[in-house]
Amino acid sequence: MTTPSLTPRDPRFEQKVREDFERQRVMTVLGARLVRVAPGAVDIEMPYRESLTQQHGYLHAGIVTTIADSACGYAAFSLMPPDAGIVSVEFKVNLLAPAVGQRFLAQGRVKRAGRTLTVCTADVVAESDGHRRTVATMLGTMMQLAERP
Amino acid sequence: MTTPSLTPRDPRFEQKVREDFERQRVMTVLGARLVRVAPGAVDIEMPYRESLTQQHGYLHAGIVTTIADSACGYAAFSLMPPDAGIVSVEFKVNLLAPAVGQRFLAQGRVKRAGRTLTVCTADVVAESDGHRRTVATMLGTMMQLAERP
Amino acid sequence: MTTPSLTPRDPRFEQKVREDFERQRVMTVLGARLVRVAPGAVDIEMPYRESLTQQHGYLHAGIVTTIADSACGYAAFSLMPPDAGIVSVEFKVNLLAPAVGQRFLAQGRVKRAGRTLTVCTADVVAESDGHRRTVATMLGTMMQLAERP
Amino acid sequence: MTTPSLTPRDPRFEQKVREDFERQRVMTVLGARLVRVAPGAVDIEMPYRESLTQQHGYLHAGIVTTIADSACGYAAFSLMPPDAGIVSVEFKVNLLAPAVGQRFLAQGRVKRAGRTLTVCTADVVAESDGHRRTVATMLGTMMQLAERP
Repeated sequence: MTTPSLTPRDPRFEQKVREDFERQRVMTVLGARLVRVAPGAVDIEMPYRESLTQQHGYLHAGIVTTIADSACGYAAFSLMPPDAGIVSVEFKVNLLAPAVGQRFLAQGRVKRAGRTLTVCTADVVAESDGHRRTVATMLGTMMQLAERP
Repeated sequence: MTTPSLTPRDPRFEQKVREDFERQRVMTVLGARLVRVAPGAVDIEMPYRESLTQQHGYLHAGIVTTIADSACGYAAFSLMPPDAGIVSVEFKVNLLAPAVGQRFLAQGRVKRAGRTLTVCTADVVAESDGHRRTVATMLGTMMQLAERP
Repeated sequence: MTTPSLTPRDPRFEQKVREDFERQRVMTVLGARLVRVAPGAVDIEMPYRESLTQQHGYLHAGIVTTIADSACGYAAFSLMPPDAGIVSVEFKVNLLAPAVGQRFLAQGRVKRAGRTLTVCTADVVAESDGHRRTVATMLGTMMQLAERP
Repeated sequence: MTTPSLTPRDPRFEQKVREDFERQRVMTVLGARLVRVAPGAVDIEMPYRESLTQQHGYLHAGIVTTIADSACGYAAFSLMPPDAGIVSVEFKVNLLAPAVGQRFLAQGRVKRAGRTLTVCTADVVAESDGHRRTVATMLGTMMQLAERP
């Protein structure tokens, strides 16, 4: 079992990630956008939207999970070969504080890139009037597919 | 540490769950609705919506998580005292198959109800032309609050 | 992505599981033994041992995890081809009650068997004077290796 | 919901942690010892022991989990008031590489300390002839009890 470094196996990794992100139609509903694409590190930002809240007016934990999962997935995808596809195998999320604020930043990072499986973490940070607070953290596993489905 | 049974501590538990569900604004975006409210068991159904998909046209894992988390939360909430509030502490989701189909049913079940913490599971089943397939499973922890935030 | 049924791909699956279990040297330290080997379902039993406890005299959560992980692993292994190897990818454990009792039974079950990854659950039940109580539950992922390391 | 800082609420936190660790009898079986006790950060070291291995000669994932869970638990415990007790609520572990080496170091860190629940992470690093490799990572939740059981 070799541990590939964080060197992307596709020199066009940034374009590949950006094009694939455009195909995630749910990101439009969330108003989410890619704000950083580096090898093994992808950040996604979204605004607070009252339409996406749970019963207390916090962003629903599942919506927080949506940007965390995509940030993890694209962090992993940035290191994969040109023709590979990717799916989420599983993830675990701890909710650390109420998801309130003006905007949310999910910071996906590769923890270990393997041949088939890549383990990632993501913190989701809420920003409000310059104040930042981590509201959730994810630990998850992504799987490389031989080709895109 | 006592293990309360699945007897709801609020005789109006069904109405309480239904009213609280109405306050989850994200459920409107998902087109989700409560289809079962029993003590410790809540089912939520939503249709497939192309607007909520990831890059392969599957429902995004975070959206699948959204209905699973709410099904778990309301299954736990159904057993709690009248004035209690509830928040998700954490959850873990395994994606078992592509989330494709005509509609999705999240079945939240209480595994253990404690004084402060309740552990729940949820399966998310995709239905397509009468065929059913489990596409995700959740194991999570919900926390009872002394009062609603 | 096909979902193989719970038909073992090795007719000698029981012998294979029993031989492999014998190679897990930690099971001797735990006093653990296989009490059921069926396709996709493996039970492991161990006695309470004061030498394996945490600060309150409960069996340490990591020891509870040890038999749950092996029960999941062998449940998955029972379905795999003759030459395949297996490793644990990840697991999540909820502790439901203090791990006290005379003996403990970990019941590993396959939830979904895929070509590469198998998702399993395990409950760990404490038995005391005929009384049974679930003290922990696991949801985890096992990976098939092309050959044994 | 306030987020207490990493200031220990017990000035004798180090002695408290060390005394409680001595009561974890399983640590003797593992040959484990505390090598660092700081507010919100606890490291536990153990040697490789062939008696604690799985079928390939790696340290069993449950044993790796045992030191990771205790490192997380004591990192959380270091911040708690003098009379508080602590139990593990749940944890998730990703196995990143075979657990082989001369010794293993579990580094538990508090991610968020709440009034009742504390979220922690731990990396387990294998050391071999001066080479270090992270073999597992944990994300878990610890619960403060009003008093020790």
